[in-house]
Amino acid sequence: MRERFRNDLTLIADLLVEMADGARAALRQATSSLLHSDADQARLVIAGDEEIDAQYRNIEEKVYEVIALQAPVASDLRLVLTALHIAGDLERMGDLAVHVAKTGLRRHPSPAVPEELTGIVREMGSVADQMAGKISRILTTPNVSRATELERDDDTMDDLHRRLLATVLDPSWSHGVEAAVDMALLGRYYERYADHAVNSSHHVVYLITGKAQE
Amino acid sequence: MRERFRNDLTLIADLLVEMADGARAALRQATSSLLHSDADQARLVIAGDEEIDAQYRNIEEKVYEVIALQAPVASDLRLVLTALHIAGDLERMGDLAVHVAKTGLRRHPSPAVPEELTGIVREMGSVADQMAGKISRILTTPNVSRATELERDDDTMDDLHRRLLATVLDPSWSHGVEAAVDMALLGRYYERYADHAVNSSHHVVYLITGKAQE
Repeated sequence: MRERFRNDLTLIADLLVEMADGARAALRQATSSLLHSDADQARLVIAGDEEIDAQYRNIEEKVYEVIALQAPVASDLRLVLTALHIAGDLERMGDLAVHVAKTGLRRHPSPAVPEELTGIVREMGSVADQMAGKISRILTTPNVSRATELERDDDTMDDLHRRLLATVLDPSWSHGVEAAVDMALLGRYYERYADHAVNSSHHVVYLITGKAQE
Repeated sequence: MRERFRNDLTLIADLLVEMADGARAALRQATSSLLHSDADQARLVIAGDEEIDAQYRNIEEKVYEVIALQAPVASDLRLVLTALHIAGDLERMGDLAVHVAKTGLRRHPSPAVPEELTGIVREMGSVADQMAGKISRILTTPNVSRATELERDDDTMDDLHRRLLATVLDPSWSHGVEAAVDMALLGRYYERYADHAVNSSHHVVYLITGKAQE
């Protein structure tokens, strides 16, 4: 029984890896579509979100099945339910990638990101990408120090977000109010993506090691 | 056994009512602090979020306990786990109230909301307040048509959000980029609050009636 439960957890972790990879690819493509004014790629991200939502429901079903069939004891129950938190965060990360893609699409064929912000946005995309990649890797190879790295990545993201807002609010900003609003919302999407990544990493550590992270 | 499970569900629904009332009061106070530049009230909202977070954990514990002690069958399991979705949405609604309160605090003692937007913001606060109130009432008195009302409220919220953005992006906007960014983010907080309210109402209908809403 105990071994079967372990196998089920591994299976659920595998499904979560797929979902994390999906949420990662979604934001990578969204950032690329945004920076290259690529409407087709943006539409792929938007259409692809259904797949991520389906993965969420699939994981939810699997968790219910494990609980119903195996009636895990209290601590194991807590463990398997953690998967729902992780899947919830990943699902939301997929939504945020869609928001990023839509930001580009609204301005198409004009570039959505003014020249002086492309560097920061590219970096935000890159940090977010690394964070999502680390979630996948912690799911396959338990590594608490890698989870700690995500906190540092999140600090980097917060710095980038502050720099983006400072650029938008600088008296020298010449792109008008609409672009400022778009860029402020965009900054928030990346920042929220990173928040969900950190959240889910804590849950991943618990799911994989059975120990809550400080 | 079955009756005990019903009682447990009722107890969990009572905890959710408390939490919904908390998330409702939080946004009501946040809107008021924002429109009256009341820093003390804003700080109360921020401090009060801990209580909402504690309610979330409390509901989570209760759900775990019910599952562990009663090993509900598949359909009942699904039902009791729905409470986690509802609590998750309500917790996030509390966070969004904190964001609204902080928007006011950042500008204190100056008013954060320019004159021409106070009407729209007040309306957004009022619609959000009604939505949160309806969640409470559906939890105590199952009423599917009331849940449908929340969809309409959400449409009203979306209209208000569009009007807010149109005002900010109008060439006559005279409050500069920073106020525009603040108001755009503020609009998003109310709109997300309403989204979570709609989400949670679907889950509430399921929790209370055992039937999924179309």
